[in-house]
Amino acid sequence: MRKVFIAILAGLFIFTTSAQDVYKIQRNSWLEKAEKAKPVLFESVCSPICVVKSVSDSNAFQGWKMQRSADMDSLYNVSLKLRKQIIADFGRHLTGYFSFKLNPISSTPDAPVRLKFTFAEVPAELNTPFDPYPGVLSRAWLQDEIVTISEFDREITIPRRFAFRYVKVELLGSSPYFDFTISEMKCIASTSAGSVTEKLAEMTLPIIKEINRVSLETLKECMQTVYEDGPKRDRRLWIGDFYLESLANTYSYKNDSLTKRCLYLLAGLAAEDGRLHADVFETPKPHPQLGVHCLDYSLLFNSTLLEYFKATNDKETALDLWPVVQNQIKYALKYFDKKSIFNPAEKESPWLFFDWNDKLDKTVAMQGLMIFSLNNSCELARMLNKDQEVNEWATVSQRMAKAARNEMYVPSRGVFLSGTEHQLSYMSQVWMILSGVTSPNEGQKALKIVLQTPDAIYPGAPYAYHYLIEAMIKCNMNVEAKQLLIDYWGGMVNKGADTFWEVYDPKNDYLTPYKFFPANSYCHAWSCTPVYFIQKYPGIFQR
Amino acid sequence: MRKVFIAILAGLFIFTTSAQDVYKIQRNSWLEKAEKAKPVLFESVCSPICVVKSVSDSNAFQGWKMQRSADMDSLYNVSLKLRKQIIADFGRHLTGYFSFKLNPISSTPDAPVRLKFTFAEVPAELNTPFDPYPGVLSRAWLQDEIVTISEFDREITIPRRFAFRYVKVELLGSSPYFDFTISEMKCIASTSAGSVTEKLAEMTLPIIKEINRVSLETLKECMQTVYEDGPKRDRRLWIGDFYLESLANTYSYKNDSLTKRCLYLLAGLAAEDGRLHADVFETPKPHPQLGVHCLDYSLLFNSTLLEYFKATNDKETALDLWPVVQNQIKYALKYFDKKSIFNPAEKESPWLFFDWNDKLDKTVAMQGLMIFSLNNSCELARMLNKDQEVNEWATVSQRMAKAARNEMYVPSRGVFLSGTEHQLSYMSQVWMILSGVTSPNEGQKALKIVLQTPDAIYPGAPYAYHYLIEAMIKCNMNVEAKQLLIDYWGGMVNKGADTFWEVYDPKNDYLTPYKFFPANSYCHAWSCTPVYFIQKYPGIFQR
Repeated sequence: MRKVFIAILAGLFIFTTSAQDVYKIQRNSWLEKAEKAKPVLFESVCSPICVVKSVSDSNAFQGWKMQRSADMDSLYNVSLKLRKQIIADFGRHLTGYFSFKLNPISSTPDAPVRLKFTFAEVPAELNTPFDPYPGVLSRAWLQDEIVTISEFDREITIPRRFAFRYVKVELLGSSPYFDFTISEMKCIASTSAGSVTEKLAEMTLPIIKEINRVSLETLKECMQTVYEDGPKRDRRLWIGDFYLESLANTYSYKNDSLTKRCLYLLAGLAAEDGRLHADVFETPKPHPQLGVHCLDYSLLFNSTLLEYFKATNDKETALDLWPVVQNQIKYALKYFDKKSIFNPAEKESPWLFFDWNDKLDKTVAMQGLMIFSLNNSCELARMLNKDQEVNEWATVSQRMAKAARNEMYVPSRGVFLSGTEHQLSYMSQVWMILSGVTSPNEGQKALKIVLQTPDAIYPGAPYAYHYLIEAMIKCNMNVEAKQLLIDYWGGMVNKGADTFWEVYDPKNDYLTPYKFFPANSYCHAWSCTPVYFIQKYPGIFQR
Repeated sequence: MRKVFIAILAGLFIFTTSAQDVYKIQRNSWLEKAEKAKPVLFESVCSPICVVKSVSDSNAFQGWKMQRSADMDSLYNVSLKLRKQIIADFGRHLTGYFSFKLNPISSTPDAPVRLKFTFAEVPAELNTPFDPYPGVLSRAWLQDEIVTISEFDREITIPRRFAFRYVKVELLGSSPYFDFTISEMKCIASTSAGSVTEKLAEMTLPIIKEINRVSLETLKECMQTVYEDGPKRDRRLWIGDFYLESLANTYSYKNDSLTKRCLYLLAGLAAEDGRLHADVFETPKPHPQLGVHCLDYSLLFNSTLLEYFKATNDKETALDLWPVVQNQIKYALKYFDKKSIFNPAEKESPWLFFDWNDKLDKTVAMQGLMIFSLNNSCELARMLNKDQEVNEWATVSQRMAKAARNEMYVPSRGVFLSGTEHQLSYMSQVWMILSGVTSPNEGQKALKIVLQTPDAIYPGAPYAYHYLIEAMIKCNMNVEAKQLLIDYWGGMVNKGADTFWEVYDPKNDYLTPYKFFPANSYCHAWSCTPVYFIQKYPGIFQR
């Protein structure tokens, strides 16, 4: 009897210390570290600066601009029943909770009041009917709320966080037996960004200064208890956005604890097989978007950790998360064939993002990003004295680079072509440059060719433009990089952006991946990197 | 110097003890007593009994009936996205807070969900578009709320109290990337009514039993921390409704503390000149509907206090509130001329209610109600040994009764006619009977005449029907009283009423004083009195 008992105990011990369980314990400890690194949110009370009206203007972004129509007092002191609808302008983009008061001005309130609030990041959001809703994402992302108010003379807070500059208030219902005003509209705005000491050379162009400022605003708004992709939508941590945000943070707010938290959160929420999830949520408790893996994003985790380590010298975290780095490489390598070419079996084809552009063939870009990530991971290994563990990586990287040149490069044309259709795209050249497959001269030549080829597949969103600028700098196209920053991000500034947008095509204000442009996020993490470029490369951008 | 100081002190003392201030102190002490008498709410967790569908039926009340379509499990276990819209039936009228849960059933929720909830007391409320809203009362009374849900697997409570039996749930927005069910719909229902031991004779007609039951439900739902006029609308204490509710309470739940609270609340919130306000609110702190006085309601306070004293023997409260009784009489007498006839100067004409019927001339009714209130107040004075203080009231009452007979009665026709148009109405006869101006025989004759006169102004709402039945009983029309109860309240029961309605015209389901019948309250205090009649007069109603 006793022997049986001991045998059971031994079995339990073996069971509880399986590799799977060790990994589970490790992930839990990572989640605990993520929780400990959670930043305190800085809150500020912000008031609207004036009442505005929407003015249709074909020259304005998406056809609408706001025009100051009155000061706030003139709204607060006049019956809301006389106005029916007003728009208040907070003067800048805010992320937080909205409050207001209703004040009876004649007779006793005898019935509830029904108000509709619509919060907008850009003017056209207030001038495009939401219903019937044609979009593909949830209608619930749109920031309109109907509120029934039964009590007066007290602050009412709408229990939903909004991201907005403008709020439209519409009176949907009130009693004929009393009159009232609205007042004390405010937003308790939050960010974990803290303050930043801007460093800009005196000679910096005004448009670059503006781009730098709007970039900082964008990053600040996305910095909450994680690096959110967008405070309006999707309000969560995506690896791709995180990589760019952490780069921008290093050159601005330097909230390294937030970066650390996000690294640990992603690590702690990885799948059982070690693959990172592309995105994770914080509430009600941290959890991943189960089953959603993005191969290029997973590999960028390694680069994010490397850059974090370089910025902070936090070796403890880098060592702690080293197994995550190894796992991402391990799983990515499965998709490469004997010739070291990215070539997944059709059924096993992983999700790749790279850009909002359905036409883009991503084979060459993925080949490049794999090499880029291997190179970054090797660098991290060396810094952690782990290179012995992964000494094959350098060889694999070189083999892949060689394969890319053999299979994807067309020397006669000086460009990389992707996929069975031999597609010419910006992103293929960009990732061949960033991975070091090309020499700077070759890269420059390739980029100049796509720049001059109107039907080359061009970047569809700011995320891809970031890598394009990085690639330009890497192959000494400094003038072009600066001009592109001015043209692209400056284009948004010139169109009135308070924060940089998720989607921007200079030729099409209404571009949306969601079949409804007001569903776009107009303060989006992956657009925040100008501050990184401007501060990291002052010689290029501040002259 | 010292003398000046003493003089100032003396002045202050005189100032602080003015009659006005004494009265203010008194009102505050009444409000404190109201607060102390505030009942605890009994809460119960109620779940819906089934899913129903709306069926158009010209024979059904307001053209719609509900038909059971499925059990709750079949809703809870199936994607809400497949249903788009459902109606849950709680099986009976409830007053309280509604909760539910959303449960992901495939993939991770990646976006908020937008749901619209519409709460209904009667089926047609769910089948009549609310917008564009044609009603005169606040649109915000209608019980539809749009809710954005960002978190799942947790109970969500809509922060507004509803009065309903049915709830319609419409899916307005969700993500294509995950699926979910709704579950655990429930209502934390509240009432201060407590329990009641029904006493009904065995021979009581089934329809009377049903009327008694629905009457108890109606009263129970209106009994919260005050006697509300309606838990859906207007959710406050009106004197007229209070009088009838307190009568019904005496013959059912016997929550005398609630009656006491309401007496003190009204007294404590009276105007500086002593006049009661017609209605008062409890939150954020007790306050009256300023400037709104209703002469017939004010005088019914006296009758309410008398009935409360008779039911409870609480002499302390009756004595404490005696000055309020005196004040109501004092102010009402101003509107009577030298001939003891109700005859206010046009500009000073007080608001009179009596019934929802714009055509009703209220002169005779007011003459009667004044005498009725004087008689009740005299009775109270005698019980409190205060008759010496008001020994002129009996004389005034007799003079008014005589004047009524002289000026308003037409002996040749056997009826009282009201106003310059000599209007024949039920209410004129009713109040002449209740005041004792007529003998029972005269009253019976008068009532029989109006009952046989098709163009006599007939009662417009249950409030007036209450007084009609009371008058019938007072002049020995027991058979008619019982038949009217069966016809009128039984008519509502036969049309499916779970609780009795604010407005009911057997000939017109859509009657509304608000230009939109769904704004009517379908659980209304002033309709709750059948239990009072059935229990007080078992010899009439329980045989």
